[in-house]
Amino acid sequence: MKMVKVIGSVTSTIKEESLKDFKLLFVQMVDLKLEGKKEYYVVVDTLGLGEGEVGLIVTGSTAKLTDATKGKTVDGTIVAKVDRLDMDKNVKT
Amino acid sequence: MKMVKVIGSVTSTIKEESLKDFKLLFVQMVDLKLEGKKEYYVVVDTLGLGEGEVGLIVTGSTAKLTDATKGKTVDGTIVAKVDRLDMDKNVKT
Amino acid sequence: MKMVKVIGSVTSTIKEESLKDFKLLFVQMVDLKLEGKKEYYVVVDTLGLGEGEVGLIVTGSTAKLTDATKGKTVDGTIVAKVDRLDMDKNVKT
Amino acid sequence: MKMVKVIGSVTSTIKEESLKDFKLLFVQMVDLKLEGKKEYYVVVDTLGLGEGEVGLIVTGSTAKLTDATKGKTVDGTIVAKVDRLDMDKNVKT
Amino acid sequence: MKMVKVIGSVTSTIKEESLKDFKLLFVQMVDLKLEGKKEYYVVVDTLGLGEGEVGLIVTGSTAKLTDATKGKTVDGTIVAKVDRLDMDKNVKT
Repeated sequence: MKMVKVIGSVTSTIKEESLKDFKLLFVQMVDLKLEGKKEYYVVVDTLGLGEGEVGLIVTGSTAKLTDATKGKTVDGTIVAKVDRLDMDKNVKT
Repeated sequence: MKMVKVIGSVTSTIKEESLKDFKLLFVQMVDLKLEGKKEYYVVVDTLGLGEGEVGLIVTGSTAKLTDATKGKTVDGTIVAKVDRLDMDKNVKT
Repeated sequence: MKMVKVIGSVTSTIKEESLKDFKLLFVQMVDLKLEGKKEYYVVVDTLGLGEGEVGLIVTGSTAKLTDATKGKTVDGTIVAKVDRLDMDKNVKT
Repeated sequence: MKMVKVIGSVTSTIKEESLKDFKLLFVQMVDLKLEGKKEYYVVVDTLGLGEGEVGLIVTGSTAKLTDATKGKTVDGTIVAKVDRLDMDKNVKT
Repeated sequence: MKMVKVIGSVTSTIKEESLKDFKLLFVQMVDLKLEGKKEYYVVVDTLGLGEGEVGLIVTGSTAKLTDATKGKTVDGTIVAKVDRLDMDKNVKT
């Protein structure tokens, strides 16, 4: 899984039939200090995360393994909201 | 999904049989300000996007999940046209 | 497989049903001197690695091939603990 | 698909049984000006491209979808020869 | 496929059951001059390559397509030993 921060949302009227019911979030990968990296994805959200919140995404074929995304043209899905990150104090960052 | 801008098209006469009927677009990944990154893909378009327009692509095996691309040698497909991107105002870019 | 160091753990209360029973570790890729690179993953651990320990992860669909992760929304799993790394003495680093 | 230029070929006597009949080309990713990037692949060629020619490759499981590569240990295949690339004149490069 | 050089080996006592019988090599991606890049993998070797030798690896689900790796938790496998690389003389490096 990759750890990301929700930084926006995408509105699309013309899209694949199978994407019709999904909320599309614009997310940014974060590092161990939760600071944004220059890597962005648009992902499906079924957990209801809001802007600024941190979550975990799965990509590739795994993104289609949730009940909601089965068989859909989806290659990125939020699967968890991150409540807390406990870091080893000795990590050099 | 990845957010991209259509920046050109590819003409190919010698190609895999299963690619015969597709329009191939040359797309560039964009960041949260819609500025182009140095990452390019050639993707199949079934939605009719034009040059300069912004869309979402799926890659890998998901690219073969649309009605049009099923079973084809395709690993990148446009699945949505982006109408609007709403960004969190606090995002550092 | 990718070689990583365990640098922390992730706590999540709201998550996909199929992730309920897993311990989620925050890992950092390491190079041939075991120094951390700027590439991070959150992975499932079924072997019991602790902070600072080095292991191997599989990503993508392979991450769902262990007995514990079969059919789960998991795209990164620890599959080995690294005891020793023997390097060719002539490698330029 | 990724756009690449053929820059060499690979000779291998010891290899997986299923790779026995393939010509292996060394290709380099190109940008929108067809200049080489520092990203290389070795791919199977069934279309007969020569050195210096530009083509499209598929990677991952899609590389095994052509008639020739079905079931083989192949994760990169040339699927098209690029005849012409028409770029939007307003693209900043 | 990716071209890599064998630069070491990994010893692991605690690992997934399905990895028990494999020799795990530490490999480094090489460029067209066979010089090492800062990209490393741990892969399964069934061909018997030694340190300093150059080979081709497949990654992702393709890594499980050899007779030896079928159904195993493996996402990187050596599938060829590179004997010779013939480069186009006009390539800018």
